[in-house]
Amino acid sequence: MIEPTTATARPQAPAAVFDWLDEAAELRARAGLTRILRSRPAEDPVLDLASNDYLGLTRHPAVTQAAAEAARRWGGGATGSRLVTGTTVLHTELEVELADFCGVEAALVFSSGYAANLAVLTALTDPDTVIVSDAYNHASLIDGCRLARARVWRAPHADPAAVAEALAERAEPRALVVSDSVFSVDGNAAPLGALSDAAARGGAALLVDDAHGLGVLGPGGRGALAAAGLAGRPDTVATATLSKSLGSQGGVVLGPRRVIRHLVESARTFIFDTGLAPAAVGAALGALRLLRAEPERAERAREVARTLAARLTEAGLRASDPDAAVVSVLAPGPEQAVAWAADCRTAGLAVGCFRPPSVPDGLSRLRLTARADLTERQIAEAVAVLARTAPQG
Amino acid sequence: MIEPTTATARPQAPAAVFDWLDEAAELRARAGLTRILRSRPAEDPVLDLASNDYLGLTRHPAVTQAAAEAARRWGGGATGSRLVTGTTVLHTELEVELADFCGVEAALVFSSGYAANLAVLTALTDPDTVIVSDAYNHASLIDGCRLARARVWRAPHADPAAVAEALAERAEPRALVVSDSVFSVDGNAAPLGALSDAAARGGAALLVDDAHGLGVLGPGGRGALAAAGLAGRPDTVATATLSKSLGSQGGVVLGPRRVIRHLVESARTFIFDTGLAPAAVGAALGALRLLRAEPERAERAREVARTLAARLTEAGLRASDPDAAVVSVLAPGPEQAVAWAADCRTAGLAVGCFRPPSVPDGLSRLRLTARADLTERQIAEAVAVLARTAPQG
Ligand SMILES: Cc1ncc(COP(=O)(O)O)c(C=O)c1O
Ligand SMILES: Cc1ncc(COP(=O)(O)O)c(C=O)c1O
Repeated sequence: MIEPTTATARPQAPAAVFDWLDEAAELRARAGLTRILRSRPAEDPVLDLASNDYLGLTRHPAVTQAAAEAARRWGGGATGSRLVTGTTVLHTELEVELADFCGVEAALVFSSGYAANLAVLTALTDPDTVIVSDAYNHASLIDGCRLARARVWRAPHADPAAVAEALAERAEPRALVVSDSVFSVDGNAAPLGALSDAAARGGAALLVDDAHGLGVLGPGGRGALAAAGLAGRPDTVATATLSKSLGSQGGVVLGPRRVIRHLVESARTFIFDTGLAPAAVGAALGALRLLRAEPERAERAREVARTLAARLTEAGLRASDPDAAVVSVLAPGPEQAVAWAADCRTAGLAVGCFRPPSVPDGLSRLRLTARADLTERQIAEAVAVLARTAPQG
Repeated sequence: MIEPTTATARPQAPAAVFDWLDEAAELRARAGLTRILRSRPAEDPVLDLASNDYLGLTRHPAVTQAAAEAARRWGGGATGSRLVTGTTVLHTELEVELADFCGVEAALVFSSGYAANLAVLTALTDPDTVIVSDAYNHASLIDGCRLARARVWRAPHADPAAVAEALAERAEPRALVVSDSVFSVDGNAAPLGALSDAAARGGAALLVDDAHGLGVLGPGGRGALAAAGLAGRPDTVATATLSKSLGSQGGVVLGPRRVIRHLVESARTFIFDTGLAPAAVGAALGALRLLRAEPERAERAREVARTLAARLTEAGLRASDPDAAVVSVLAPGPEQAVAWAADCRTAGLAVGCFRPPSVPDGLSRLRLTARADLTERQIAEAVAVLARTAPQG
């Protein structure tokens, strides 16, 4: 439709500059990869096994009350960068309590877990660093690697021996080993003890993204580092999100004081980003205090996951053996996975659905999240729906 | 203290892996570049000319009330990615109202303005694209350029002729011209009309970061694109933050429906990030509705800025001629700028302070933000403090 008028065939009608987006959309549609944005009502009749609200705290009155009070007392936003006007006493309180809870020297709160990961990967590395990053790491870690000025080596999944070898063979004086603590799609745990050993022997620092471990793993939900006896190590840094177990929004970096100071002074996603909104700070604080008061919530989330997996296996489905609160169930193929998830939704059950290209191993599956507040009846109902709607084969 | 035991002199004590951070801190300290995190109380006696709360809405009862109600009704967090469980009816309401207000087809809300910028720059470009990016653009745009797989050309500041030339000379079939609408440090406006012409003639799309324009520029605060008569163009995309004029947290992309759809389906900082917390969505909606009801707030912010600049000039200071709500005042050098800002704070006035390396032009200055709710007396007080504490020269 557009007449090219120059040698390089540039469109003249302004609208044409985005015509390629329609072609991309058609390609996605043909591959069955169209994504739909569905908005949910406040009182959703659907049984939720798709969110990351592992402890069921997002809508707990103590959490929503803390959010509401923080908004009233401190305002709708933080008003500026954390370094200018965006740090309130409430932010500092949350940082002190998170550091104490997780057994580290210091904590720094970000507007998201994504931003926290970008910060650590860029600020703790330079051209004299190699980053050794697990092949199944979360998108935010991968983007952090891309933003960093270091060489990046993609390590085979959960393979400490390969990590040790890469560290031994490197030319760079510095190295950072990076891994999710619990891999988000399948829910399996990283071999953190062995990774820590490999890092220490190889003179590397270790960065663990504990997004799916905080609140679920370790004593009282203190996270994967605490579970592995690694919390407070001077060579180890953790990141986490406030948006899963803590029922809020935001991210946090947990580690040695010198690391936190370095981030304050040099991490671009800290310096050039508005501070986390007070309501989110308040909600996370409320959830953290609740978890300290009721530490059994963490174990309960893991127990629900184990029960769910066992019942699904009994029903003949191929469920993962859960290390935390995520259970995955294999589907015969991508189309079947999509149809299965849709059938579940029709039956009133929300589950996650992962297929290529968003699964690193190419195996399509459903992703179920256990919640500490799921009842025995809800678990039974979820298993019944999944079994009834399961594809053949 | 550490004995190197291998040829590459790798540290054996785990703590040593972060020793270089102490050296970096010392270098920064020697250059006078140490940054301090100061937490503010809820009732701060300091007069704030440092935040980006341009319309003074962050603590407006209608905004904090909307935040509190959203937290109560929807929970402390969004519970998942926007594509899984993280889109509530409230998110959709905000998107519809923002698009309508700004005169564009569609809007998409992110967890921050930073994330929105990363999304657009990565999802709307590919190796067949050249990004033509203003030299003074915000850090989040620069990081977006680094993450993108396109060639990036750093254009001289506010120079549409140079942009046109770069577009004409490019080899890539696609191009994206990128500029802040109002540059954050100095507060000067970009030549958007001329940039749009250059982009259209060169077959390029235009991306405008309207973080400092939304709520301040254009009729009733509809933003820089509306002010320049560019809103709704099929070749133009805007990003903005909900954390400045709208007194909340979050980011938004505003543009043609096909662009928004493409972001939903492919932008990593949308897909792999938890949705914006309901309280932040509620606060932004509350602020937007307030601004629609009281459109004079936008003009008032600009008027305060002009008054502030005029009075500072009368007082013999070198103030910028403000295009929006930011006024900058030149300092003789970096040390004087720091001392000046500190003296202001001692006198009860909070101002921003920018010096190399965070000013692209190397000119140290104070940054003052006008707020629509500043009183005549507060303006007079601010000018008096700035004049009294001004460095010689
Ligand atoms: C492993 C992991 N890391 C980081 C993130 C990002 O955290 P946030 O949503 O707070 O940006 C997520 C999910 O959202 C995640 O699953
Ligand atoms: C021009 C500009 N763009 C983007 C941002 C980032 O927005 P946010 O703070 O919501 O991440 C900011 C400031 O924070 C900014 O000044």
